[in-house]
Amino acid sequence: FQSKLPKTGTNIFSVMSALAQQADAINLSQGFPDFECSPELVSLVNQAMQQGHNQYAPMTGLLSLREAIAAKTQELYGASYHPDNEITVTAGGTQAIFTAICATIHPNDEVIIFEPAYDCYAPAIQLMGGVVKRMELEPPDYRINWTMVRRLISSHTKMVILNSPHNPTATVLQEEDIRELISLTHKTDILILSDEVYEHIIFDGQPHRSMARYPELAERSLIVASFGKLFHITGWKVGYCMAPAWLMNEFRKIHQFNVFSVNTPMQYALADFLQVKEAYLGLADFYQQKRDYFRSGLESSRFELLPCAGAYFQSVKFNHISEDNDLLFAKTLIDRVGVAAVPNSAFYSKKTDFGILRFCFAKKQETLTKAVEQLLKV
Amino acid sequence: FQSKLPKTGTNIFSVMSALAQQADAINLSQGFPDFECSPELVSLVNQAMQQGHNQYAPMTGLLSLREAIAAKTQELYGASYHPDNEITVTAGGTQAIFTAICATIHPNDEVIIFEPAYDCYAPAIQLMGGVVKRMELEPPDYRINWTMVRRLISSHTKMVILNSPHNPTATVLQEEDIRELISLTHKTDILILSDEVYEHIIFDGQPHRSMARYPELAERSLIVASFGKLFHITGWKVGYCMAPAWLMNEFRKIHQFNVFSVNTPMQYALADFLQVKEAYLGLADFYQQKRDYFRSGLESSRFELLPCAGAYFQSVKFNHISEDNDLLFAKTLIDRVGVAAVPNSAFYSKKTDFGILRFCFAKKQETLTKAVEQLLKV
Ligand SMILES: CSCCC(=O)C(=O)O
Ligand SMILES: CSCCC(=O)C(=O)O
Repeated sequence: FQSKLPKTGTNIFSVMSALAQQADAINLSQGFPDFECSPELVSLVNQAMQQGHNQYAPMTGLLSLREAIAAKTQELYGASYHPDNEITVTAGGTQAIFTAICATIHPNDEVIIFEPAYDCYAPAIQLMGGVVKRMELEPPDYRINWTMVRRLISSHTKMVILNSPHNPTATVLQEEDIRELISLTHKTDILILSDEVYEHIIFDGQPHRSMARYPELAERSLIVASFGKLFHITGWKVGYCMAPAWLMNEFRKIHQFNVFSVNTPMQYALADFLQVKEAYLGLADFYQQKRDYFRSGLESSRFELLPCAGAYFQSVKFNHISEDNDLLFAKTLIDRVGVAAVPNSAFYSKKTDFGILRFCFAKKQETLTKAVEQLLKV
Repeated sequence: FQSKLPKTGTNIFSVMSALAQQADAINLSQGFPDFECSPELVSLVNQAMQQGHNQYAPMTGLLSLREAIAAKTQELYGASYHPDNEITVTAGGTQAIFTAICATIHPNDEVIIFEPAYDCYAPAIQLMGGVVKRMELEPPDYRINWTMVRRLISSHTKMVILNSPHNPTATVLQEEDIRELISLTHKTDILILSDEVYEHIIFDGQPHRSMARYPELAERSLIVASFGKLFHITGWKVGYCMAPAWLMNEFRKIHQFNVFSVNTPMQYALADFLQVKEAYLGLADFYQQKRDYFRSGLESSRFELLPCAGAYFQSVKFNHISEDNDLLFAKTLIDRVGVAAVPNSAFYSKKTDFGILRFCFAKKQETLTKAVEQLLKV
């Protein structure tokens, strides 16, 4: 049997979470909150089920949810996405990304991705017969060198994948990046797949530079968002994709045959809950406190803290600690102090070791306190 | 922009359901129950959410759910599928089918499908660069001519897709079909994708001939099942795929990048609810009563009833009524008597018209009574 993805093993999040569980370690590896979501949200789902909303939702998503998404996008980014033909509800951000790539990438199309990169981009491109053009970004600032990007562009370039706030590096796109991106793609047919699942988790008063804000970019962009990250419900698997109508039309052709539709009662609940603006407007502050606690806790540790501008991940450098490589150190860390992290090398196709680990701080105070306590023992 | 699926429009289920809604017609088109699921199941989901099961489930599915699926498969079909590496929970049957095709079909691989066919098979094959080899089956019995199938087989044949109980024709595979299938695929590498989402809805005491029952077939089969059909929760989007470990390993490589994981609280609820055997063992009788009511109601109508051995669809022939084609008749039927059906031509790539409509009888008594009343007016 000829594998479609011969080099793919089990993803790093499952591996580290399993190791954490076996060792009964504090799991700061896989990115998910260990605290409760809003009880109101739970009771809205219950209500929807009780009211009998248990059959197929429309293929594109519940209209009231698409309307609520459109209103939020208008309010936050000043952008008009039409619920009818520019927004589709998906079974999480990952399904949106996979579907977007399926819908656009033909054999031999080239797609530029920046590493470290979330692990689902490259396999989807390869599955479509596309060619992954990688650019490695380096710590501590992981700045995109746009002159180098320009050199990667060819007549086969079909798409650039961006992710801001960024997983795993916690960097966010700056105005300068946006200018470069506009000049780079201006008058080309290059698409942008913008993974914005951490859009609401951005610190120190920085704005989230959604592609939706920039008409020159939005007209060629597929934007991916996630309710899992927004409302602490990563297990509900509801997200969405926004794109101009002509592109959304292509997205839906694949979406309808991939999952057809998305969980109905959860969509009802989310449509209602999105009306409660505090639910997401307070998110940045909420996580900034966790970030600050975690960072100040580790200040006296042997780890060097990398900047953290967004998302719920803190990267640390351990180069004064001798270890063969990132993965090995992540494993020893579990054994030695009972804290699980993700080695950043896992986000590079070449498993490049920069001596960096990623900790998820989307955890309750108690967990963070214990984790800091343990990490100070390293 | 070059479309990945240039010929794909909106699927027939969305089209007919929308027309039904506009005309306020009785919707017997799209296949979904219009009655409630078990309140116990609803409260199990609520309980899971309350208990805080709202974050990512394992990529492969909740262990307790995979164990419950394994136990049910053992009991019903005498087959051992290991929860660890032979069962994966999916976001519905459609996602399982799409993922199975993504995981196995390479460019130029040939896949044999039988038409009328559910609409998601062919686009997924084409998306992978595969070649769809179609065999048209004809009413009223839609028998597979295995001699003809043999002629379709070539060195490029990678897969045969089967669906029993069958949507839309309501036929079920017979022992003779199984014998032919075994002899056809014996000592070949041909895979079987077996869409068994209606496995529990089979009438007149016939057994469901799951591929799981036949080791010679199971060893090369991906079996797809659906909780939506089993528990009247088509909107929850939970299903699963079973396959031998080597094949499931390939399936999971795609699954993890397509959706990563499936709704957690629903999985908890289903794991518990699967212990209640009556919940699914009574399903065939439950639907047989509906079938019998609907059929006897239409006996004096102008429609000719086709056989109905399984699934929740009744096909009728309208050849004594003059209409240009199936789709047109389905539309006129909405206007004339306010009942929506799916034209069977929609399940043929060539839109072949046999003068047949498909009615979904997964409806409460009141709906069926009204529908029959209206249909007698034709
Ligand atoms: C899909 S599981 C991984 C969750 C996540 O986004 C991460 O840990 O980076
Ligand atoms: C996925 S919507 C269609 C439901 C169904 O299976 C059918 O009507 O055939």
